[in-house]
Amino acid sequence: MSNEQIIAAMKARVFEANLILPKLGLVKLTWGNVSEINRELGIIVIKPSGVDYEKMTQEQMVVTDLNGQVLEKESLQPSSDLATHVVLYNEMPSIGSIVHTHSTHAVMWAQAGRALPAYGTTHADTFYGPVPCTRQLTKKEVEEAYEVHTGNVIVERFTENKLDPEAVPAVLVYGHGPFTWGETPNKAVQNSLVLEEVCKMASETEKLTPEVEPIPQFLLDKHYFRKHGETAYYGQK
Amino acid sequence: MSNEQIIAAMKARVFEANLILPKLGLVKLTWGNVSEINRELGIIVIKPSGVDYEKMTQEQMVVTDLNGQVLEKESLQPSSDLATHVVLYNEMPSIGSIVHTHSTHAVMWAQAGRALPAYGTTHADTFYGPVPCTRQLTKKEVEEAYEVHTGNVIVERFTENKLDPEAVPAVLVYGHGPFTWGETPNKAVQNSLVLEEVCKMASETEKLTPEVEPIPQFLLDKHYFRKHGETAYYGQK
Amino acid sequence: MSNEQIIAAMKARVFEANLILPKLGLVKLTWGNVSEINRELGIIVIKPSGVDYEKMTQEQMVVTDLNGQVLEKESLQPSSDLATHVVLYNEMPSIGSIVHTHSTHAVMWAQAGRALPAYGTTHADTFYGPVPCTRQLTKKEVEEAYEVHTGNVIVERFTENKLDPEAVPAVLVYGHGPFTWGETPNKAVQNSLVLEEVCKMASETEKLTPEVEPIPQFLLDKHYFRKHGETAYYGQK
Amino acid sequence: MSNEQIIAAMKARVFEANLILPKLGLVKLTWGNVSEINRELGIIVIKPSGVDYEKMTQEQMVVTDLNGQVLEKESLQPSSDLATHVVLYNEMPSIGSIVHTHSTHAVMWAQAGRALPAYGTTHADTFYGPVPCTRQLTKKEVEEAYEVHTGNVIVERFTENKLDPEAVPAVLVYGHGPFTWGETPNKAVQNSLVLEEVCKMASETEKLTPEVEPIPQFLLDKHYFRKHGETAYYGQK
Repeated sequence: MSNEQIIAAMKARVFEANLILPKLGLVKLTWGNVSEINRELGIIVIKPSGVDYEKMTQEQMVVTDLNGQVLEKESLQPSSDLATHVVLYNEMPSIGSIVHTHSTHAVMWAQAGRALPAYGTTHADTFYGPVPCTRQLTKKEVEEAYEVHTGNVIVERFTENKLDPEAVPAVLVYGHGPFTWGETPNKAVQNSLVLEEVCKMASETEKLTPEVEPIPQFLLDKHYFRKHGETAYYGQK
Repeated sequence: MSNEQIIAAMKARVFEANLILPKLGLVKLTWGNVSEINRELGIIVIKPSGVDYEKMTQEQMVVTDLNGQVLEKESLQPSSDLATHVVLYNEMPSIGSIVHTHSTHAVMWAQAGRALPAYGTTHADTFYGPVPCTRQLTKKEVEEAYEVHTGNVIVERFTENKLDPEAVPAVLVYGHGPFTWGETPNKAVQNSLVLEEVCKMASETEKLTPEVEPIPQFLLDKHYFRKHGETAYYGQK
Repeated sequence: MSNEQIIAAMKARVFEANLILPKLGLVKLTWGNVSEINRELGIIVIKPSGVDYEKMTQEQMVVTDLNGQVLEKESLQPSSDLATHVVLYNEMPSIGSIVHTHSTHAVMWAQAGRALPAYGTTHADTFYGPVPCTRQLTKKEVEEAYEVHTGNVIVERFTENKLDPEAVPAVLVYGHGPFTWGETPNKAVQNSLVLEEVCKMASETEKLTPEVEPIPQFLLDKHYFRKHGETAYYGQK
Repeated sequence: MSNEQIIAAMKARVFEANLILPKLGLVKLTWGNVSEINRELGIIVIKPSGVDYEKMTQEQMVVTDLNGQVLEKESLQPSSDLATHVVLYNEMPSIGSIVHTHSTHAVMWAQAGRALPAYGTTHADTFYGPVPCTRQLTKKEVEEAYEVHTGNVIVERFTENKLDPEAVPAVLVYGHGPFTWGETPNKAVQNSLVLEEVCKMASETEKLTPEVEPIPQFLLDKHYFRKHGETAYYGQK
């Protein structure tokens, strides 16, 4: 494939992934964005900022370099969250796509400033342990370079907690909402869907049994490795 | 455009905005109304009272003067909440359209008699600070001129709290429900949608972290001014 | 109209009303029934028992006399709740149609054994005061004539609380679910929809403000009589 | 019918039952599986593992013997939960079909590790008493033969609590989610739907009246036997 064809295919995938978010109930209005990276070509494709999903076209997806500089003439403005995506792509070398939403239940946890405990196997099938929540940004960070520092506090949390972004492909940004990622836009969107659902489940679980404990490590291991890694036996070969 | 064309266009926008409310899940039965004002012509266009959305036509939208007096012969009765709209238009000179609904989560907060705190950026993107709740109307106010006084307690709350209706385009009326506004019917409806969503988010946020604090002023500033005013950089130019 | 035509029209209305319940999200599977009475002809038309909504036909609606005796040959079995409808029709001479559902939020209140307080105007627009909850049936009542006594405890509650079935067209049966009524099947279904919605609103209202009080009598009066009786001014003349 | 025709008909029923789960909102992504047993032929038909519902075909349903050994050449891998189904079929001789989902509210109760009390007649119409929750699996059980032991703890719970799988056709697996069963795939799916709904109702019931008691035995008897067994009078003959 020529570079043009590669970029066109990326635009198609990013466009489709953005459109599926409102269909899954994860995005209202224009509150979401999906991007994809091609590390060999050194480019990122991301949704344009604030364009109605009904009017958005595949061609309008914005192409940038790995610093977030727009590469195409006549380009629309990229998503205002691009700088966060750029930090994550640079600090998490294994990820291929990022999704940001304001999905209802994930935002509830983010606003509550709480990491999401692994209360069941629905969680463990996708997230190998709690989904962390960042610290709040400082006044200086917000005023100086808000979107960059949003990326930085995510990376800080993963570093401090010694988390592997492949094993825990999601984060809650304090007072804001979720970011998820994956190898492909399709997988990153799926992780957003799972995160929303397990956020909903966890919050009622705590009401039914206030002293509830996360599932034990051996069950977390079992479910996660049933679906991931060399010992996986879920799905087709 | 002739005055007739202007009025026809207003009727079309008000009609469409009314129809979109049940589609967005913000209105059941006939529990909502949208109006638009043209200050130069001195007219308001509003939904007729209690007409089934399925049978309602564009032509049936009711045209009144700025005192709420019906202008067209053969007109249907205007929404029973018209007098509230009239007070708001007269006291808030910058607004162009008003929406009233009984959307589920906004009513929950209104019935609880509580202002909606700004717990996250989803809120801050649209509402610059808490969405206020009015005081309860007195017996005298209810019996004397219910809909007028409903408008009055809204204005009273904005005056007392020194709020700018452009920066906080929504209010909760104690024991009743939400009113939102905006430059256009489309924008006012969008504000109703955002209000409903942030009401839903906030109430679960408080359960997850009972001692939760609103987001700090600097984050409120950042998100609000990312989307509004001269320094906005969200969306396309 | 001939009696046959009257009955055919009743069957059509009862059939349509039954079908609209799952569309409104008020009924899952076959958990609901609608009936209509014609007091002059002395007949009741009601849904057959346990027939899939997808296979049900208008002709299958069951015709009975005012004691619940099936009148047509080749008739299907009437809804197992028919005896409850019969009691209500005989004891509430002003009502023309009854709806029973297991709608989610109304059942929550019925299972909690609580009357639904009037926390807002959404409630007051349809129900003039709290929606009562019956006492639990005794072992003897359940074993002797369950459906008849279900009707009896509803009537007992209305009598004891001095309630007017026209002003409060709904009840919660303890541990069971809601019954609503109205002049027509359409109106009775609408009352089921409103009941479900205000049940949902009320329960979150109590969580947001645990010490919340019902709206004052003067606001209840205002909203109820804005829509009902001689002084009504909501809707078209 | 030839054996081939019987198997084709089983595949058709299992396929349809799997597809209806996401339509009923009981399954997201590939989080569910339905199987059916034919005890005379000694075969089980079950969904393949991890195949997208949109791409899945009727022919892909997997045929195994009563030990879970795949019988057809070119077969896809069966659902990873097959071993649990096998245990249940062998220990519960009266059941004909099993459904496993991660439906939201049933998972909430499973994660909370709580049996579901019978708070109302909606529950009693389908489940004759509380829906039990298993104990947690031990580390040894999880590591040794996870899916087999999941079946074992279900059977253990039914044995210890002296429950009849026909009278209580559902269970919550601690930290995981629900399994339901029935004579046919259609009936087993229906039981999943009822379980999800009564889980939702019960959890809010407890918030409305924290000291709420399950319905009395005589009401449980009445509703269950109104629909089941020789004295049933619900539905058509």
